Amino acid sequence: MLNINKIYDAADVLKDTARKTDLILSRNLLEGHEIYLKSENLQVTGSFKLRGAYYKISKLTEEQKRKGIIACSAGNHAQGVALAAQKNGIKAAIFIPATAPISKVEATRKYGADIKLIDGVYDDAYNAACEFQKETGAEFIHPFDDEDVIAGQGTIGLEILDQLKDVEAVIVPIGGGGLISGVAFTLKTLKPDCKVYGVQAQGAGSMYQSYLNKKILELPVVHTFADGTAVKKPGSLTFELCQKYVDDIVTVSDDEIASAILTLMERQKLVAEGAGALSVAAAMFEKLPLKNKKTACIVSGGNIDVNILSRVINRGLLKTGRLSHLTIELLDKPGQLKDVSAIIADLGANVIRVRHNQGGENTDINDCFLKISMETKNAQHFEEIQKALKNRGYRITSNVQ
Amino acid sequence: MLNINKIYDAADVLKDTARKTDLILSRNLLEGHEIYLKSENLQVTGSFKLRGAYYKISKLTEEQKRKGIIACSAGNHAQGVALAAQKNGIKAAIFIPATAPISKVEATRKYGADIKLIDGVYDDAYNAACEFQKETGAEFIHPFDDEDVIAGQGTIGLEILDQLKDVEAVIVPIGGGGLISGVAFTLKTLKPDCKVYGVQAQGAGSMYQSYLNKKILELPVVHTFADGTAVKKPGSLTFELCQKYVDDIVTVSDDEIASAILTLMERQKLVAEGAGALSVAAAMFEKLPLKNKKTACIVSGGNIDVNILSRVINRGLLKTGRLSHLTIELLDKPGQLKDVSAIIADLGANVIRVRHNQGGENTDINDCFLKISMETKNAQHFEEIQKALKNRGYRITSNVQ
Repeated sequence: MLNINKIYDAADVLKDTARKTDLILSRNLLEGHEIYLKSENLQVTGSFKLRGAYYKISKLTEEQKRKGIIACSAGNHAQGVALAAQKNGIKAAIFIPATAPISKVEATRKYGADIKLIDGVYDDAYNAACEFQKETGAEFIHPFDDEDVIAGQGTIGLEILDQLKDVEAVIVPIGGGGLISGVAFTLKTLKPDCKVYGVQAQGAGSMYQSYLNKKILELPVVHTFADGTAVKKPGSLTFELCQKYVDDIVTVSDDEIASAILTLMERQKLVAEGAGALSVAAAMFEKLPLKNKKTACIVSGGNIDVNILSRVINRGLLKTGRLSHLTIELLDKPGQLKDVSAIIADLGANVIRVRHNQGGENTDINDCFLKISMETKNAQHFEEIQKALKNRGYRITSNVQ
Repeated sequence: MLNINKIYDAADVLKDTARKTDLILSRNLLEGHEIYLKSENLQVTGSFKLRGAYYKISKLTEEQKRKGIIACSAGNHAQGVALAAQKNGIKAAIFIPATAPISKVEATRKYGADIKLIDGVYDDAYNAACEFQKETGAEFIHPFDDEDVIAGQGTIGLEILDQLKDVEAVIVPIGGGGLISGVAFTLKTLKPDCKVYGVQAQGAGSMYQSYLNKKILELPVVHTFADGTAVKKPGSLTFELCQKYVDDIVTVSDDEIASAILTLMERQKLVAEGAGALSVAAAMFEKLPLKNKKTACIVSGGNIDVNILSRVINRGLLKTGRLSHLTIELLDKPGQLKDVSAIIADLGANVIRVRHNQGGENTDINDCFLKISMETKNAQHFEEIQKALKNRGYRITSNVQ
């Protein structure tokens, strides 16, 4: 049975391995609210997963350690287990589906694990790992449904209480539920009046559905940008702990998650992955009753592929009206580029790219097109610019923001 | 005269306003080295500038405070002064050249300052600010060449000593020299054997040149991606303090800075601006004798435009061989796309975009082109893929990495 002494024990075991990550006050994530960010994206390996994996491994017997450990994951759990094994001087075989991003595979390999790339998807890697387990008798480290793993993640709850004594609400991302189980158990045991809320991605709401229906449900398919939380079925232990200790669970959309990632980068200078930004997305988009509550959001990880990050930035800039594209039809005569540029500049937008295309379908042979990309303040600002251009007689054939 | 009690006084004044930013150990920025990152990008306002500005304002007389303050800046100093004024309940007029990025103007406005957007460049804004100063008698807050401002920045030195008692080297970005003056004075006073190194961008090496030549030099023009350090001439006070307390100053290229920004994002989950990444670039590209030294790099700020960040990511991925583009000439017959895809997939690269163009100059009318963008592991990996394609008879007409 999970008990609070186990959480204290985990904190003691982890003290030289896991960083006590900073709790950072943000005054402008949500108007009029004090939101604190527990920056587990700055944890060693880039996510909280090291905590549970390391504590779990420390509890193995010498005989178990000798046989080594196995994990199946393409993400943060893989890196957490690999580093924890390395630090304990034991062998780790990590099974990864061959479809996993190269960057994650390489990061795991760096921690000295034996990487087994398996053709196919997660289930194929999982089956191969089970085969290997039978052959070798190595210990399988479950990513969430394990009491020691949960206790390791619970140490984050202890740290938050130490860093913000009068915390009133904590928001926690949920995948399989290991993180929230540990944190909710710890907080409700030591400070029962503190609210604990869970957040899942809309496309992967297995714990959300199970919690609502008060029984474990398995989703036929999960699909979300927050790939670290794409779990079809919660654990039995984590489900039980959520039922008992969690005040509510909500969901956020992929667009809301992307917006939270961008906000964390721009305003907080923190890189978060999709799963890591769930808690911030729930706060920003007011999914929870946080009014006047000192709230801590756990930013659980930062292992996002930079290619994806680049796409998130562009999409976010378009959505918030700060990057705008216009296509304008010009008569092919001198001075028009100058005229259009002046209109835009006078209204305070910043042109970052211009393309000038002669001709096009359905146009007069004398016409040409001007494609302008510019930085704008917001959607209203973009409207003003379009209005000014129209007033001057220009025809706008496409606008994207 | 600057003395150590002033630094302690500044630390006391700042204790409820500036964050004691985390000092984060990074094991993999430079092989075999312990590099610590002093994360001033996570400081309130996104840079260290708040420290100096706030301390300076706290030292003004009541009469001075009543008349308000003036600053001229498009960047971190503007935000630091604006927030410091807001917290002290005094008026601030911030002069900003109209060419400044919208995001920085908006961020400064948010802190309640009176924004004066001046047509032209920095010098025009500066002249307007001087006019305004004469009219109003308000206090001009210099961005670096001021003893109180320098003392405020020096508090970072105290924090590093507290966070890492046996620190042996500290690397500090230099623009006008306010940050390094305060930090070097503090460290050399309290721990004289600790090395203090400065870093400037190659295109804006005014302190570097002045330090080498032992006299203040003014550069005719400065041009760097690290816009926060684009200063033509060091201050007289900061020059004197650098001469006395700094062990060496080196420069880094814009490409090295961009690479450091990308590394900080990917490995440390931290967003740094160009100026903020100077110290890390100097460490990564081994510009300084750090062997076996416990080194702290000050990551001085994170206020980078996300548009620029997006460009840094793409450029960095290309340079490190993780994003590769190939143009392959195909005979226009069935099955070739499949064949090429198989070769690439078998070698473990991940195709992210394919474009198929029929025809082109200097080609047979039956030929067509395949443009493939893919994630690769490194430059060697890309070589292998090209070799495999050539062995199979494909002609590669362009490769970009």
